[in-house]
Amino acid sequence: MGHQRTIDHAVAAMRTAGVDALLIGPGADLRHLTGYAAHALERMTLLVLRADGRHALVVPELERAAAVAGTDAVPVRTYAETADPADTVAEVLDGVPADARLGVGDQLWARFLLALQQVRPGARWQLASHVTRDVRMVKDAAGLDGLRRAGAAIDAVHRRMGEFLVPGRTEQEAGRAIAAAMREEGHDDVDFVIVGSGPNGASPHHETSDRVLSAGDAVVVDTGGPVAGWFSDCTRNYVLGSAPDGYEAAHQVLWDAQRAAVAHVRPGVTAASVDAAARQVIADAGYGDAFIHRTGHGIGLEVHEEPYITAGNDLRLQPGMTFSVEPGIYLEGRYGMRIEDIVAVTEDGVERLNTTDTALVVLPA
Amino acid sequence: MGHQRTIDHAVAAMRTAGVDALLIGPGADLRHLTGYAAHALERMTLLVLRADGRHALVVPELERAAAVAGTDAVPVRTYAETADPADTVAEVLDGVPADARLGVGDQLWARFLLALQQVRPGARWQLASHVTRDVRMVKDAAGLDGLRRAGAAIDAVHRRMGEFLVPGRTEQEAGRAIAAAMREEGHDDVDFVIVGSGPNGASPHHETSDRVLSAGDAVVVDTGGPVAGWFSDCTRNYVLGSAPDGYEAAHQVLWDAQRAAVAHVRPGVTAASVDAAARQVIADAGYGDAFIHRTGHGIGLEVHEEPYITAGNDLRLQPGMTFSVEPGIYLEGRYGMRIEDIVAVTEDGVERLNTTDTALVVLPA
Repeated sequence: MGHQRTIDHAVAAMRTAGVDALLIGPGADLRHLTGYAAHALERMTLLVLRADGRHALVVPELERAAAVAGTDAVPVRTYAETADPADTVAEVLDGVPADARLGVGDQLWARFLLALQQVRPGARWQLASHVTRDVRMVKDAAGLDGLRRAGAAIDAVHRRMGEFLVPGRTEQEAGRAIAAAMREEGHDDVDFVIVGSGPNGASPHHETSDRVLSAGDAVVVDTGGPVAGWFSDCTRNYVLGSAPDGYEAAHQVLWDAQRAAVAHVRPGVTAASVDAAARQVIADAGYGDAFIHRTGHGIGLEVHEEPYITAGNDLRLQPGMTFSVEPGIYLEGRYGMRIEDIVAVTEDGVERLNTTDTALVVLPA
Repeated sequence: MGHQRTIDHAVAAMRTAGVDALLIGPGADLRHLTGYAAHALERMTLLVLRADGRHALVVPELERAAAVAGTDAVPVRTYAETADPADTVAEVLDGVPADARLGVGDQLWARFLLALQQVRPGARWQLASHVTRDVRMVKDAAGLDGLRRAGAAIDAVHRRMGEFLVPGRTEQEAGRAIAAAMREEGHDDVDFVIVGSGPNGASPHHETSDRVLSAGDAVVVDTGGPVAGWFSDCTRNYVLGSAPDGYEAAHQVLWDAQRAAVAHVRPGVTAASVDAAARQVIADAGYGDAFIHRTGHGIGLEVHEEPYITAGNDLRLQPGMTFSVEPGIYLEGRYGMRIEDIVAVTEDGVERLNTTDTALVVLPA
């Protein structure tokens, strides 16, 4: 009944925020609140948490057994295969005022939100994350332990990178080998594998291509996935034989920036100030325009979640928050680089959950 | 520029339906319309198709290179890391009337839909699928070929099931071996693996558990994933050694029902009538209450898509439509069974894209 306590926290947060009900579809919030790992499918599955405690988990009839097995934290209510699930949700919301404030899960599909808006036309809609994010952002001991294990699993993959980044192979071939190694090292699944070689490294979210790795290439490898439900995410930079012109100097700037940002992390500082700590070093070295994204994102049951480490986010860090610190430098047409560690805010500072060296790694060409 | 033609079809459908713009996030519709395989992430990526042809693909600045590489069918427009992407979408919608009918992708996240509703408060919102489903439902030769390959890949896995369903192994262990075999046989990824042994088979969407397979178990195996982007999905039933009491008789009923439904498929009949063809056989044999779901779902770039083969769906089948035919019988506390083939509607009948025998398979115990 550990989930009962999580739900109680969420209900308390709802009352504070003046939200009458939360409507949460499949995903990390549902898992976190109930333990039920539902698939996101075209049949509606919706957790209804009411401020008055009259909760229900609405699921299609054929998911009843899976839902009952998946959670004992809330009663399960089903709808028939040919029924309209929005009508069932409307029944579950019976007694909630017409102009209630209803919080919907960030990732609830439009097909469900539009259907819910039709059965509750007078409601005031907002995102559930305004209520749930505090419950999700600060990890307990089990969450921190899960993220440490995920970090160790991806670190083991990066230590083996010389097996995968072999000149003559394509990025796709290297990526498949990395994905297999992730599973070997304990990942449940592979969420993404980025192998950005040469100019491809300059696109931060390039994945893999048929470009052939060759001597003199710089390669960004950024990869992650769940380990017992908790996500890994780590980026390191590799060169095959020798580095391209100017690359090592830029990597040193990036190394300094990433280290400065990690060192800045502690309770009470803002998320924005962590971003600024990295950005300042990169800007001072003249690469400001080449750092085209925020410094990091929260991580936990999702690979990207709150808190976001970005300019303008005045959220103050608390012990138990976990996020990436991953500045990058991207020079279009030439190469790109990014150094990423997952860190946890501790009582008086920071713990790195990735522990491999962040220095440039030279592999044989 | 094959995608240009797909977009032109969609625009023609928009005009017919009186929809002013479509707003499509990452997913199968975006891939189908533009070729761009964007990740669903917290940064908004949104294809805006306007009935007047002034389209744009709105992406975060750091995805610009990936988006430009991913599609040349529409101009790419970016927003800065700390900007509000809904404002950029509002600019792209400049000139579209305040009370326009806007169609949003079925799977667009609530966080984006609520933000869009704030910048276009007077709009009339509906699902884009009312417009796009006709474009997606009927496959061309390339789509049919993709689905045939996916079918062959999953058939190869089912042929090897004796390697995986070994007494003494848990469902989870068997499931991991099946997942590995799916990749070996050509799947890009594993979408789901259901190994429902004994009473677990009676929950249609049970996945795997730590239940140990043993002699006398009946086991439902339902598994699928993408092969070069096109989905496989196939279910067969296995018994280890000997079947439980009553199982073979029920399986024969199911076999008759599935065969009757497949044989019923041809252009001009309704989706509902295919469902009825299976349901009638099962009901006549006294198992009507044990068939607790629809008979099938469309399949293509998504594992579940239109057309749904369900009571009440009066859609008439056309050549090129592809869907599952998968009746099931579920006896709680005892066992369950389901037979599933993917089929394509041909000019004068039906083609099964799964070609293994649908009979009960007896494996050594």
